[in-house]
Amino acid sequence: MIFWKNWESKQLDLILLHLLLNVQVLLALKKLNGPLSKYFDQTLDDEFWGEKTWEKAESKIIKETVNTVINKSGIPADEIDCMFAGDLLNQCISSSFGLRELSIPFFGVFGACSTFVESLSLGAIAVEGFAENVLCATSSHFCSAEKQFRFPLELGNQRPPTSQWTVTGSGAAIVSKNGQGPYITHITPGKIVDMGIKDANNMGAAMAPAFADTLVAHFLDTGRNPSYYDAIISGDLGHIGKEIAIDIAKSQGYNIKSNYNDCGVLIFDKNAQDTHSGGSGCACCGTVFSGYFFKQLKDKKIKKILLIATGALMNSTSSQQGESIPGIAHAISIEL
Amino acid sequence: MIFWKNWESKQLDLILLHLLLNVQVLLALKKLNGPLSKYFDQTLDDEFWGEKTWEKAESKIIKETVNTVINKSGIPADEIDCMFAGDLLNQCISSSFGLRELSIPFFGVFGACSTFVESLSLGAIAVEGFAENVLCATSSHFCSAEKQFRFPLELGNQRPPTSQWTVTGSGAAIVSKNGQGPYITHITPGKIVDMGIKDANNMGAAMAPAFADTLVAHFLDTGRNPSYYDAIISGDLGHIGKEIAIDIAKSQGYNIKSNYNDCGVLIFDKNAQDTHSGGSGCACCGTVFSGYFFKQLKDKKIKKILLIATGALMNSTSSQQGESIPGIAHAISIEL
Repeated sequence: MIFWKNWESKQLDLILLHLLLNVQVLLALKKLNGPLSKYFDQTLDDEFWGEKTWEKAESKIIKETVNTVINKSGIPADEIDCMFAGDLLNQCISSSFGLRELSIPFFGVFGACSTFVESLSLGAIAVEGFAENVLCATSSHFCSAEKQFRFPLELGNQRPPTSQWTVTGSGAAIVSKNGQGPYITHITPGKIVDMGIKDANNMGAAMAPAFADTLVAHFLDTGRNPSYYDAIISGDLGHIGKEIAIDIAKSQGYNIKSNYNDCGVLIFDKNAQDTHSGGSGCACCGTVFSGYFFKQLKDKKIKKILLIATGALMNSTSSQQGESIPGIAHAISIEL
Repeated sequence: MIFWKNWESKQLDLILLHLLLNVQVLLALKKLNGPLSKYFDQTLDDEFWGEKTWEKAESKIIKETVNTVINKSGIPADEIDCMFAGDLLNQCISSSFGLRELSIPFFGVFGACSTFVESLSLGAIAVEGFAENVLCATSSHFCSAEKQFRFPLELGNQRPPTSQWTVTGSGAAIVSKNGQGPYITHITPGKIVDMGIKDANNMGAAMAPAFADTLVAHFLDTGRNPSYYDAIISGDLGHIGKEIAIDIAKSQGYNIKSNYNDCGVLIFDKNAQDTHSGGSGCACCGTVFSGYFFKQLKDKKIKKILLIATGALMNSTSSQQGESIPGIAHAISIEL
């Protein structure tokens, strides 16, 4: 059910917040670096990264990403008050195993592919309250995700054109009370929106209504309109979901065509990398925001961004039991 | 790694908070009601509750629990600013399917069996900040958990004496800025603690060190000692984990023997219900606190409780890959 009601008092002004630093790791499985690869701190050409399993590799990816962001920030680990992290693996084991040595109070979150923005949102709420510095992180891995959600990779299943390619990587950020910006100025947490889509190979269609729901809630809440932002960016709707999102927004009176794009569209070269409808996964939004858009903000090439990460709240059992796919989308405004 | 360092500024005084209402559903699979059953709002004698699968039944349990708590509170659903919920099922589908019709902004959390207190903690932070009313909920189901984490129930596997019985049920609470108490006065979020335990049939041993870590952090943080509380209650360490927890706390200079107990010990009749080391699961702490201890607080039979919910952050793949079991424990003080 889509619920357009204005969410009064759901906005949060966090003008003291500073999205401090960020780092991410991107793996282009096909040994082809994508169009954004030059913006990433590190790229890998081995999906195991020296580990024995994909799950252990994913844990290593989030661990090294988080260690790098802490080192870059110059903030001692014991001055980080808490961390919010989650991922796509069952029981979020990438995060809990990857971050278990950190000795920082840990809040596990699960928002599927919306986890990065969910973590930033909760980090912002914590920093507005008791915390000085909060670490937010997420990861995903193509191989561990395919194995878990769809079929064994060894089967070599053919992928339908609507399918997306889970980004192997990690994005992390420290939200701090002290800094020079950019700042998280608003958060708009999403409601669960289920329009009855059942095709686990068409996540874009399942999540686009949730994107539009949160987008409209944000505009009604803040009195803003699409032209306020230099960029409106969704997490991983992909090529097909992006078009659906534009259409739904238009039907609600919001024309976002000129300044809207999707991380899943941007991260891969559709033709050269053969990724069908584009990128997906927690790390899709995590890496594209941290690597590309955050640098655009720091360089003042864009000044106002609305980042809306989308997630599909299903598992393989729910699909096997004939359930539809509930979507969710969380939004944050980040401004200079 | 256990890290005893005092966590300064991690305490949170939320004197305006009110743990408003609560409800829970308990299923005693063996058709024997446990010693606390008279405190529960509803008990079930069918693990399917009219649904076709255990997963759908678990979603129905959390849905009905949350609807009941909202109705009991008298707070219109559209005045609930957001909800925090999670569960043990892969990708937390019990919560996302059970709560998808609610149209309330949703933050998914995953803390394994510590989820109830993690949700209450984040709810308290949100209410200290922007929110007036926050809904916190969790669920677990013996059958869906066994099937997912261990073996198909149809195998009829013998259970070792250290194993625990996942509680089928749900606990929910509304944290509100306005009310007569009891109040959440402090939260102490836990760190991930991994002492190398690998036996997925001995969760109590895996989680007890995390319990002790958070317990000691709480006392160092607040300057309190065990005698400050009328009751110190862990979530689901069970009979074996409880003894380990007492020993570790004693070795750190804290004698909790006289006022400490565990929800997993309390919920089942060990002999009549043949549940080996006791209860476990998100709903163990959720139902025993909501059903029993909350009523004790309302009736002023106890005035100060320290609730420490424990979680094991593993999945079946991590166990199959030889990993140990990281534990976590989140604590909240609830006082009149």
